[in-house]
This record gives sequence, structure tokens and C-alpha cells, in this order.
Amino acid sequence: MEKNLFVGIDIGGTSVKLSFIDKEGRIKEKWEIPTNTNDNGKHIVGDIKKSLHKQMVSRGIKQSMIKSIGIGAPGFVEVDRGFIYEAVNLGWKNYHLKSEMEREIGIPTFVDNDANLAAAGEMWRGAGNGANNVLCVTLGTGVGGGIVAGGEIVHGQFGMAGEIGHITVVLKDGAPCNCGKSGCLETVSSATGIVRLAKEGVQATPSSILNKVYEHQGDITSKDVLDAAKGNDAFALKVVNESMNYLGLALANLANAINPEIIVIGGGVSRAGDYLLSMISKSFSTYAIPKIASDTKIRLAILGNDAGVIGAAWLGKQRSM
Amino acid sequence: MEKNLFVGIDIGGTSVKLSFIDKEGRIKEKWEIPTNTNDNGKHIVGDIKKSLHKQMVSRGIKQSMIKSIGIGAPGFVEVDRGFIYEAVNLGWKNYHLKSEMEREIGIPTFVDNDANLAAAGEMWRGAGNGANNVLCVTLGTGVGGGIVAGGEIVHGQFGMAGEIGHITVVLKDGAPCNCGKSGCLETVSSATGIVRLAKEGVQATPSSILNKVYEHQGDITSKDVLDAAKGNDAFALKVVNESMNYLGLALANLANAINPEIIVIGGGVSRAGDYLLSMISKSFSTYAIPKIASDTKIRLAILGNDAGVIGAAWLGKQRSM
Repeated sequence: MEKNLFVGIDIGGTSVKLSFIDKEGRIKEKWEIPTNTNDNGKHIVGDIKKSLHKQMVSRGIKQSMIKSIGIGAPGFVEVDRGFIYEAVNLGWKNYHLKSEMEREIGIPTFVDNDANLAAAGEMWRGAGNGANNVLCVTLGTGVGGGIVAGGEIVHGQFGMAGEIGHITVVLKDGAPCNCGKSGCLETVSSATGIVRLAKEGVQATPSSILNKVYEHQGDITSKDVLDAAKGNDAFALKVVNESMNYLGLALANLANAINPEIIVIGGGVSRAGDYLLSMISKSFSTYAIPKIASDTKIRLAILGNDAGVIGAAWLGKQRSM
Repeated sequence: MEKNLFVGIDIGGTSVKLSFIDKEGRIKEKWEIPTNTNDNGKHIVGDIKKSLHKQMVSRGIKQSMIKSIGIGAPGFVEVDRGFIYEAVNLGWKNYHLKSEMEREIGIPTFVDNDANLAAAGEMWRGAGNGANNVLCVTLGTGVGGGIVAGGEIVHGQFGMAGEIGHITVVLKDGAPCNCGKSGCLETVSSATGIVRLAKEGVQATPSSILNKVYEHQGDITSKDVLDAAKGNDAFALKVVNESMNYLGLALANLANAINPEIIVIGGGVSRAGDYLLSMISKSFSTYAIPKIASDTKIRLAILGNDAGVIGAAWLGKQRSM
């Protein structure tokens, strides 16, 4: 029988997302189980095994139909061995995830970092639309990224490639970043960064919508800032412009060096949609080589939370062919 | 008989460098012929054929001993087809270099951009020392680059990857660049950029060594600036510091994203040697993620003009295995 199913798994600190995915990257079934981080995460693989077998039985899927399992894990992964140096949120340290999975379940398993696989998912079935050269950026609490070049995930020497959030964009008096530097992209273009920029100036602009929100709620969210900017509040607009100008600069500088076909923008902040995209594109055009400015597509991510499992299945498919 | 020789060719606007290289990347023989750019470069392949056959006869090398030919060409190359979109200095436009070579010479031929192959050469046998993840930057009249990730040259979507010189580093009032933008790395860190920065301030600093050189010669070279800086001339030091600070910023931002094991600095400006390297490293450490700052090696290129033919042989070897 042809092995034409792939299992895609995305392990997060709260839940493990599992899926059966066909060879075209379509999700046939998806479900979640809670992540049991007790005892340094030693129950996670057993939980995956149980849940997978239960679904296989209920869906009439035999092990012989499954070609491979792909897994995205949060943290520092050595991909060749499927070895987790450290996944702080799961409790794993120096953990042989690949061999543990293969011993328990008996299906070839391949592992990569979850952000990289989300990028691969968007490349395969999402906004990347099958392009071989894709740069993905995720604007959430931080700024994450993944790079696909020539159809392969770029890992770099220590698996640290894709740390787009720590590109230095504010050269003078930049805000301190968790990484130990200052002026990182993450300090201005993440949800947290947008809020920080807004809070810095909100009390000095009493006429702004944001000031009223701040007075009323005692706090501001990045959505408040983006909504106020869309409502043409001058102060909010200034904040969002500054934030997206830095993002466009960082993306243009990367695009000049790696020449992606498509740049995919995802994460919570990207829910501001085309409004945000047009700001990013404007800044990108200022800083990219003219041919790169005109030919690089910038798009919103479309897979949402499914990107991780689809990318995981892609990894399994690619490695087991 | 085992095919254990590779031909590496580096085509420049003035001369064509040719070589026989063994499978370990060692040059067994190298020589040059002038580049005949007459008639839109239509004689170049014939000249290569004649020169190659002459050397094969005189060295007792049979065609059956040659596995493949690799060629680096200046310009815009579609690597899969070995097709030259445009090589302005040679007169080629929409030229099927690979098929032309294979028809004339009868040996499998593979083509890439010359800057990419120089990077591959340094990776294979030079300062990259066989590392799979290498970032090469060439500081000459302009600033060029090549990226090797996971042992493969990064080409990007339109073969434009590696355009490190056009990373924007001066955000405000940057000098105009040939690419149409302003504030590019090339405007401050190339030989031309260093001279430009020096000329901007030299007349206002009459006490500097550089001022005397300028008065005496009526001009300044980048070597003058670097020599004066090494001699602790305050103004020259300020210029070189500024130039190398921007270079360290651009390299750190790239390293944060692609995590190379080794960064190789080549080109004429790099002759300033360890002096330059220590300045670049200092700036790199300021702008790179701490782990990347501590673990990335920055080295001077060591192959000089041989990098291109060695990288070309590498390409041929890699593609014909």
C-alpha cells in the first residue's frame, strides 16, 4: 500500500497540535492535546503516542499508510539528529526527541524548530504558495522569523538562523532588548514594541484617541494603537509609522542579501491586515534595491495556527522521500 | 579511468583565469588568457577551448580524466540552465554559456556568478575551511558578497542574493549610491566609500596626515586613509572607525538572520589586515546577538585571485557527483 499520509505535530508550551496531512499538504484531520510538562516533559512523547493511536483507530488509519512524522518543537534543535538542546517551556534539555519517538511509535520522525516549520508551512501551502525562496516574519510578543532558501530551511551553524527580531535597527539610544543588546527590531516592531513606543509619548499628547484609551483602561494594547492609527489619530499613526518603517528597513536589508520571492508577515500584529502591509511595503521600497523593491511580494500569512503542523508534515515528507 | 580532475574557470573583463584542480580543491596548474570582448564576446568560448586543449596536450591530460568544468562569470546568471542574462563587461546578453561550452568542448559545464564562486572557493579551500555556513564580503571599488548556507550557495529568487553592498546602513542623509538608493553599505565601507568619507572632512582638518597627503597628491586613496589610521592620525582613524562600524553593523544583522560559522573579509581594502579585522569585530560584537557575537569567526580571505577558479571547480565537482 502506498504510504501517502504524513503526521504533522506542533508542540507548544500549552498544547500539542497533531494532524494527518496528505502529500499535497492538505489537513485531513487535526486535533489537540494538553502539553504535560510535569517531570521535565517526560510524558509528552507517550501522550502523543496514545493520542495518535486512538485517532488512527477511530479513523481506520493503519501504520503502514503513514510515511513519516514531522515535529516542530520550541527551542534549540539540532535537526540532523532530531536532538533538543533545550526547550525551556517543555522542560526538555539534551533530549533525543527523534530516537525517542521512533522507538515508541516506530515511524520515521524528523524534528525542527517550530518557527522554522511555521515558515515552511506558509511556504508550502500558505502565502508562500510553493515559492522556493521565502522570508517569514512573525510579529507577536517578540519578532520571530524563518528563512527558506532554494527550497530548504536555513538553519545556520548553530541552528540560530532566523533571529530576525534581533537585527539592530535603532542605532542610537535604542531601547534595551531581552537578548542583551539594544535597538533590536523586536523593541520597536513587536506587539510589545508598539505598546512601548505608544506609552513613551501618550501622556504628552492629551488630544490623541490613545490618550483617552490610556486614561480609561490604565493601559494600552497594540490593537488599541493600530485601531487608533486606522482611525487617523495623529499620534498613533506616528507610532505605527515608526514601527513599520523599521520593519521595512530590516526586511529590505535581508531581501537585498537573500533575495526572497515572497515575504510573509504573520503573528498577532499582522491582524491589522492590508493597512499594515501598505505601510511595510512603502518602507521596504525605500530601503530595497530597486529591482528587489519591485519584484518581491509582501503578503499576510494565511495559515494561522495550522502553519506549524503543515510545515512539520512538509519536513517529514521532504526527508522521507 | 577515474575522472579526478576539475577545470575551474573565472571569466573577468580583462582576463580569463583557467585551472586544473584536483578533487581536494588543490590547484595543479593555472594560467590566464586575455578576454576578447570583440563582437559581443562571441570569441571567448572558442579561446577557452583552444587554450584548454593546448594545456591538456602539454600536460598529458586526456579529456577522459576531466569530470567537469565550472565557470564563474561576472553578471546576472541563471544557474540551472547556465544562462547569462547579461554580463556587461563581456558583451554577453541572453547567452547560453553552458550549452555553448558543452557543444564546443564536450565536458559537462556548470556556471554561476563570479562573486558567488569566489565565496564558494573561500568556503572550500580558503578562510572558510570547509564550513557549511559562510558569509563572504568583498571590499573593493564596491562591496560584494556571497552566502553559503548548509553547504549551498544562496541564489535567491532572481539570482540577486548576496547584494550585501546595498544594505542600508546610513538611515539619515546617506550618500547616493549607484543602485539608486542612498545610505548603502557600499557608500561607506568600500574603497570608494572610505575615500569619499575622507575627502568630505580632509580640508577641515589641516593638522591631519591625510591633509598633507591630499595637498601633496591632489587626491587620496583608501590605502592612504588606512595607512594614516594605522599611524594614529585622529581624522583618518575617525573615518576608518565610522566605515568599519557600519560594516560590523551590516555583518551582525546578517549573521543574526543566517547564523554563519565564518565571515570572510576579502577585496583590496582587506589588505589592511588584522588592524581592520579588530575594528570590524568590535562593531560586530556590539550589534550581534551575544551568542552569535561570541561564536562567529571573522577572518581575512586567503585565496586572493585564486578563489574564483577554486570555487568554479567546487561547483563543477558538486554538480557532477
